[in-house]
Amino acid sequence: MKELEERIQADGRVLGADILKVDSFLNHQIDPALMQRMGQEFADLFADQTITKVVTVEASGIAPAVMAGLALNVPVVFARKSKSRILSDEAFAADVYSYTKQTTNQIRIDKRFLAATDQVLLIDDFLANGQALLGMKDIVDQAGATIVGAGIVIEKSFQPGRDNANQAGLTRIESLAKIAAFEDGQVVFDQA
Amino acid sequence: MKELEERIQADGRVLGADILKVDSFLNHQIDPALMQRMGQEFADLFADQTITKVVTVEASGIAPAVMAGLALNVPVVFARKSKSRILSDEAFAADVYSYTKQTTNQIRIDKRFLAATDQVLLIDDFLANGQALLGMKDIVDQAGATIVGAGIVIEKSFQPGRDNANQAGLTRIESLAKIAAFEDGQVVFDQA
Repeated sequence: MKELEERIQADGRVLGADILKVDSFLNHQIDPALMQRMGQEFADLFADQTITKVVTVEASGIAPAVMAGLALNVPVVFARKSKSRILSDEAFAADVYSYTKQTTNQIRIDKRFLAATDQVLLIDDFLANGQALLGMKDIVDQAGATIVGAGIVIEKSFQPGRDNANQAGLTRIESLAKIAAFEDGQVVFDQA
Repeated sequence: MKELEERIQADGRVLGADILKVDSFLNHQIDPALMQRMGQEFADLFADQTITKVVTVEASGIAPAVMAGLALNVPVVFARKSKSRILSDEAFAADVYSYTKQTTNQIRIDKRFLAATDQVLLIDDFLANGQALLGMKDIVDQAGATIVGAGIVIEKSFQPGRDNANQAGLTRIESLAKIAAFEDGQVVFDQA
């Protein structure tokens, strides 16, 4: 998505070898109009699929997921994160390890909000190691629902997230921006 | 907002004396089209004001805030919650006590995203005791910015949140649904 790549070039900040901060428009301060266009782009990319629900993880996934849900005219469910590993009969749960924070969170979705008949589009802000995506897939699998694919705002394609997801059987991943490398503090995008 | 009141009557669940669960359309599963109409309603309610930024708190505030920001055509900033009370030179911070969870979180906004020239609309999903609203006000005050008012999705007007906010100098509060009481497990709305 050209607009997103340009925004990353203009406002993203590369820190160290592999960190991209996009907190001025995506995951702390949010540009709502850009989110809406991204949501429409996700809907267009998956226009060949029947989708009944969008699933994401709090907090950074919520804005793009809600805009995707708006464009697709389906409900959105965001998994809640908890440090507690206690299991509940009322929720589907999965552990998600964060390489950035080096902590494991449990993510949970109330069983009332995923049914075996659901056709689910997963949405997340970043794809790096794929842990959040695998946790969401685990939860949707527990519900017996079907995953039609995953929509990612920014994929770091030099990290193993896509391979990890593919190996777990999540093969349809559409990313709005794919970063091939950081070179001299600059973002280099994949040539599509 | 009639549509919201009807949705609360249809899908809200009253638990005990003072808990209303609206996790089927507001704060776990989200109805994106309803969020968009609520965002437009906030924009209409504050149409007499100049607003340059919407501020909310993760995670439940994000969906209504992003839709308000979309309708107002301004950026949205969501404060991040942290159990850690460490202060940073880079962020404005305030402590927020949750009566529901009986814990204190610090909420933080990076100093780059609030300027003294900002005219801020605060948005939150619930107003009960007003602690989150007061924490956001504290942060906006630290930035030297101006608060034009607060937009609340659901106000429990039998709790002291509005009075507490008024006493702190936050006098303009517009709530889309105002709950006067829970009676026999049913929601009773304020007669506007």
